[in-house]
Amino acid sequence: MNKARLEAFSDGVLAIIITIMVLEIKVPHGAEWSDLLKQYPVFFSYILSFMYVGIYWCNHHHLLHTVKRVTSGIMWANMHLLFWLSLVPFVTGWMGENHFAPHTVTAYALVMILCGSAFSVLQIAIKKANPNEGRLGLALAKLRTKAYISVVGYLIAIALAFVNTFFSGVILLLVAVIWFIPSKAVEQALEEEQQG
Amino acid sequence: MNKARLEAFSDGVLAIIITIMVLEIKVPHGAEWSDLLKQYPVFFSYILSFMYVGIYWCNHHHLLHTVKRVTSGIMWANMHLLFWLSLVPFVTGWMGENHFAPHTVTAYALVMILCGSAFSVLQIAIKKANPNEGRLGLALAKLRTKAYISVVGYLIAIALAFVNTFFSGVILLLVAVIWFIPSKAVEQALEEEQQG
Amino acid sequence: MNKARLEAFSDGVLAIIITIMVLEIKVPHGAEWSDLLKQYPVFFSYILSFMYVGIYWCNHHHLLHTVKRVTSGIMWANMHLLFWLSLVPFVTGWMGENHFAPHTVTAYALVMILCGSAFSVLQIAIKKANPNEGRLGLALAKLRTKAYISVVGYLIAIALAFVNTFFSGVILLLVAVIWFIPSKAVEQALEEEQQG
Amino acid sequence: MNKARLEAFSDGVLAIIITIMVLEIKVPHGAEWSDLLKQYPVFFSYILSFMYVGIYWCNHHHLLHTVKRVTSGIMWANMHLLFWLSLVPFVTGWMGENHFAPHTVTAYALVMILCGSAFSVLQIAIKKANPNEGRLGLALAKLRTKAYISVVGYLIAIALAFVNTFFSGVILLLVAVIWFIPSKAVEQALEEEQQG
Repeated sequence: MNKARLEAFSDGVLAIIITIMVLEIKVPHGAEWSDLLKQYPVFFSYILSFMYVGIYWCNHHHLLHTVKRVTSGIMWANMHLLFWLSLVPFVTGWMGENHFAPHTVTAYALVMILCGSAFSVLQIAIKKANPNEGRLGLALAKLRTKAYISVVGYLIAIALAFVNTFFSGVILLLVAVIWFIPSKAVEQALEEEQQG
Repeated sequence: MNKARLEAFSDGVLAIIITIMVLEIKVPHGAEWSDLLKQYPVFFSYILSFMYVGIYWCNHHHLLHTVKRVTSGIMWANMHLLFWLSLVPFVTGWMGENHFAPHTVTAYALVMILCGSAFSVLQIAIKKANPNEGRLGLALAKLRTKAYISVVGYLIAIALAFVNTFFSGVILLLVAVIWFIPSKAVEQALEEEQQG
Repeated sequence: MNKARLEAFSDGVLAIIITIMVLEIKVPHGAEWSDLLKQYPVFFSYILSFMYVGIYWCNHHHLLHTVKRVTSGIMWANMHLLFWLSLVPFVTGWMGENHFAPHTVTAYALVMILCGSAFSVLQIAIKKANPNEGRLGLALAKLRTKAYISVVGYLIAIALAFVNTFFSGVILLLVAVIWFIPSKAVEQALEEEQQG
Repeated sequence: MNKARLEAFSDGVLAIIITIMVLEIKVPHGAEWSDLLKQYPVFFSYILSFMYVGIYWCNHHHLLHTVKRVTSGIMWANMHLLFWLSLVPFVTGWMGENHFAPHTVTAYALVMILCGSAFSVLQIAIKKANPNEGRLGLALAKLRTKAYISVVGYLIAIALAFVNTFFSGVILLLVAVIWFIPSKAVEQALEEEQQG
């Protein structure tokens, strides 16, 4: 029951984060295609962040599957994750409106690194309180490889931002894409759980 | 359980989309009726989008009834649908503020076509993972006729926007209205499900 | 199950409506009390609408208690109610920013009348689909007297707005207050339901 | 069931309050670190309020655990609490944008005192309707000491705001921090509840 409300609150916050980002895309004053196209960095940063928040929602969803017992530690680790994710609309807007200027890309990538770290902290808090995490927990632990690759990706994106921001955007997109490659271990663990 | 959270997240996002659209209706500075009436295209586009998002919520609701097993594919197809729907407040604002100018109507209708396509993709992903979809699934599949008519309607609305935007508005309204005509097959399937 | 999602979506929309209204209270530029106090009509209209939306949430909550069977008619009647309620933040902002100018009070009261009518339509749709509504349904039907008094109150508020908007504010407040007087019939019906 | 919807609505409102606060952090026009750093009071007030609303969510979550019977009184006491919490984004924005100017700190601390009082009122309403509150209820009652310290802290913050606003910020932070110190009584009561 405890867990149901933790999920409900997190879903609420994630749903709002992913949706209010669209408010950062200001309606252009002109009515021509060109008025819309001028905003392409804003749209690109929106798509990027929508993907990232979507990935967080999916992984958060899987991670909470492994929770049987909710402790204060888990509640606060979760709140901490939501805090960093809540800054995503802000850095998305800043990066988009400034056409991926070096410092804005740095801020974006830093927030992403902090979100990732907060997710790891939550994972550790959950494991501590729920030692028998089962197959799904083990499968999620394996995702840490992807997490390390992501951090490297973010750092490269920051470095490239000072050379050519276009490459930073590509790297940020690639980091998102590697999270779309389904993890066989997670899929099988979920399958098993639904059957038995 | 998996499904409950998918529904909760989708409901959250849809509830926010349908509600933040009202933030696009800027409070007029004057206090006269005329100040309000000047904004009639904004109100009309709001009503239109409220109807469309409402229809999507209803159909999404019915569609998820047929789901027994949630896969990663379904989760991502759902996220993809929510992405296109999340652009509705933006195109609604753009079209309304520019009095249904041709390019804004085109953008609106295109987003609507993409939402419709994303819904079909979700339907296919659900069918693949849940082959025995039952009577409700079959009834929903029959709605595809309406979906095709809608696409034709959107295309006509785009074409007419370059002639007279008033007609585009009427067509967009008619497309929404045909979704209000209740489908007997869906009604019966829902009835049956609630009884047994 | 059907009903759970209808409640979840309505709760989401009502929670957003009641909360985004605070975004209409613009943060004043100055840092003095006087800068805050200048906005008193904005605060008053906010309090008023918070009360009204709160009342709607409570009554909606009670009304859905009487639902066993969800039909398409109920879903659309509910969506219709949410539509009018979604306009509350807009008319609240318009009335507040224009210091309860006559036409803005008229718009506010009209939206309130339309919300009330939509609630009655939902009540009728629910009764039609769930004939054995039980004691709670009967108790809620008795609230219709309050609904009629409210409509009269709204009309008086409109009329007074053209004389002195201060009185309109008082009347709108009084209408909200009569809904706070707990209905013994509803209380008893709820009590009974929780016990048996 | 009654209770589930009360929780859902409160979670929705709290999730929105905590998330829309980020909209008060305006995206800076420049793309330099200095443009971001200039906004440090806005960020600090955001962090502060995120912590406070997070604490309220946690305590609200615990408090509702002790509820078996939902009365109209509880529903209205809850709505009253949500009202004061809904003003948090506004006072956060005002305090942040004006660099913790004395009157803005006063307004912030006053809203916090009113939120705290509303929480106590809810606690009393719940106790009245659910006399056998169990061990968790008793543990939560013990938190009243923290509540009194907080009120003293808020008053000191107000007084210091007229001397040096930096100290006010520190006091407001300290008040939040004392709520992070886990209460052993609450932890044990929750533990017990999950086991039996």
